[in-house]
Amino acid sequence: MDPGNPGVDSRSPPPPSFPPTSDAVGKQKEVEDRLGQLLERWKPLRDAASLHNVKWQRDADALAHQAAALLADVDDLQSVVASASDKEDIAHQSAQKLEDELNKVRTMMYDGDIAFLLPAKNNGYFLQALLGPVNVRATRKDSRYKVKEEYNAYRDRTAVMFLAFPLILLILQNRVWNGCFPALPVQVYQAWLLFFYTSLALRENILRVNGSDIRPWWVYHHYCAMAMALVSLTWGIQGHPSCIHKQQGVRLFLRWAVMQGVAMLLQNHYQRQRLYTRIALGKAGRMDVVWGETAGVTGQLWVFYPLLFTLQGFQFYIGLLLLRTAVLEDESEWQTVVCGLLLITMAVGNFSNTVATLITKAKFKAKMRKKGQEVLQLMTSKKLS
Amino acid sequence: MDPGNPGVDSRSPPPPSFPPTSDAVGKQKEVEDRLGQLLERWKPLRDAASLHNVKWQRDADALAHQAAALLADVDDLQSVVASASDKEDIAHQSAQKLEDELNKVRTMMYDGDIAFLLPAKNNGYFLQALLGPVNVRATRKDSRYKVKEEYNAYRDRTAVMFLAFPLILLILQNRVWNGCFPALPVQVYQAWLLFFYTSLALRENILRVNGSDIRPWWVYHHYCAMAMALVSLTWGIQGHPSCIHKQQGVRLFLRWAVMQGVAMLLQNHYQRQRLYTRIALGKAGRMDVVWGETAGVTGQLWVFYPLLFTLQGFQFYIGLLLLRTAVLEDESEWQTVVCGLLLITMAVGNFSNTVATLITKAKFKAKMRKKGQEVLQLMTSKKLS
Repeated sequence: MDPGNPGVDSRSPPPPSFPPTSDAVGKQKEVEDRLGQLLERWKPLRDAASLHNVKWQRDADALAHQAAALLADVDDLQSVVASASDKEDIAHQSAQKLEDELNKVRTMMYDGDIAFLLPAKNNGYFLQALLGPVNVRATRKDSRYKVKEEYNAYRDRTAVMFLAFPLILLILQNRVWNGCFPALPVQVYQAWLLFFYTSLALRENILRVNGSDIRPWWVYHHYCAMAMALVSLTWGIQGHPSCIHKQQGVRLFLRWAVMQGVAMLLQNHYQRQRLYTRIALGKAGRMDVVWGETAGVTGQLWVFYPLLFTLQGFQFYIGLLLLRTAVLEDESEWQTVVCGLLLITMAVGNFSNTVATLITKAKFKAKMRKKGQEVLQLMTSKKLS
Repeated sequence: MDPGNPGVDSRSPPPPSFPPTSDAVGKQKEVEDRLGQLLERWKPLRDAASLHNVKWQRDADALAHQAAALLADVDDLQSVVASASDKEDIAHQSAQKLEDELNKVRTMMYDGDIAFLLPAKNNGYFLQALLGPVNVRATRKDSRYKVKEEYNAYRDRTAVMFLAFPLILLILQNRVWNGCFPALPVQVYQAWLLFFYTSLALRENILRVNGSDIRPWWVYHHYCAMAMALVSLTWGIQGHPSCIHKQQGVRLFLRWAVMQGVAMLLQNHYQRQRLYTRIALGKAGRMDVVWGETAGVTGQLWVFYPLLFTLQGFQFYIGLLLLRTAVLEDESEWQTVVCGLLLITMAVGNFSNTVATLITKAKFKAKMRKKGQEVLQLMTSKKLS
């Protein structure tokens, strides 16, 4: 019985203190009175909450309506610009400038306080299947950024594991296991991969719903990786008489994973720098992420792209090797074929997406250079005049 | 160029129509003007959205503060009642009544418009690991109920699959596969189980965050089932010379799954009726669910509980059988031991939770009967006076 209960809001009237009685009826009366006071405080609070909800919803609907209309106009104007540029009603250069401006407006809208009132991307099949129609959209701007920050932190943490796990397996194989993997540690690794890719795919889908522009391929790529981890779990690797020959696929895959782990660590480091630059330039929204695309500083490109392409080539090679095994051997398992096809799909997809990004980057650079020259010209002509 | 663009909100000033010109400069000017108008419409909208957010957050914080204080007082009063009842300062019967009243207040709060302003349960380890710190709380009451409804619909849909999948496998084994399962269909079934239990565990954790009172055991139970599906995927069932003997575990598990499927269908049907009754009585919140606990109508109890206990006994028996195999056979696999232990854990947990629920129910019934007698006595005494 403490009237100065720290849980009591200072704005609500303090419950009057009752003198403690040892009388049972008195005690009961006291509790009943306090219960009555609780109910009396509850009613106005309930009404205030209802009113607050109704009012908020009405205001939010009105704002959402206006925002959707504005967004539709941006879309409309963008298509007007595109068709006018095609018909050469507007010079290509001016059309480009107008398009940039319109993209900036869109980025501002999706980055601002109004973002969560804009028409949402729906959850998509993957989230719908695993979570159902739950709302994963953050209503507050800061919590949206928190989701993004946590995604980056998760990639950092897991990249270390992604590198360490196969590395330890390969070292133990050489030093302790005499060249032959026991089944269990490899299966634990495969189960971890399944968990890891599932979690990434879930998080990336949630980022997408929250307005990130993540390239669809990097999400599909994680679906392929999930499928491969699942299939490889059913693939008995023990009990073969010639483990060195039979476990060649596993060994190659682990080596690829070590390289991939190094690439992920480099990526996470460089891409974040680059993204911060792009956000500062207004070229990217704060919810955007980059996956396996580009490095931050031009100097690093000469290390990073060769590594990426080597990785993709290696992935393709392991895929081919598995398919060849399936064709040559009489008693080949279906897992050999499926894993081979999945690896080749991922390698080709990764390669074409990396190239597509490089082309976009090259175009962007050419544009920037041109702009630089224009500014130079303008400055020169101003000086002359 | 359509001034009557359906995307334009009627409240915003209609963009003036420009006469179409074939002149490039005119076209560019026109687009630039529209862009300027867009930017002018954007600014007040942005400010309104910011203001709306700030105001909403301030109001919500104030309400949340009051609600938290009220909830703390409910907690406080509940402990006062409990200790007074222990010290017999309040008669046990009155204490029970007061406790019921306090629980009702709590249910009202968690069911009302204020629910999402109350201190949230945190995401918990499972959601945190797979989704990160994303907000899965529905802000609107109706969308919270939608999550719940969808969860029930999901259980309905999947119960049919849960029954049909092992049934088809057993039929094919007898009719087509001559008594021996091929590996692939069983592995597809195991992968489906892994997906199914993961999805259930995710959905139940989300329900919990949204204020459902789901018994923790039923969620843990799904973690065990996930682990078992994962382990069974690594369990090569093909290639044994004596498949009839080696596949005994699989056959038993599939038969258990068929019975479980029937039980799930019955449960989903009866429990929903019972939950609706409890919600109507104010005994349960609208976000509550029931899992493997009780049937709706007393008559059905005589069908349902024996079925549940038989299932649990059967689950225990399969677990023991697997452990025995592991002990007796020389070349036993680790999966035998782990699956056996998991099945026994689940059987014991299910049994004790079902019994606990039955005891709670019996107590509740006794109380109701007593209350009925009191009312009868009161009516009789009134008649006499």
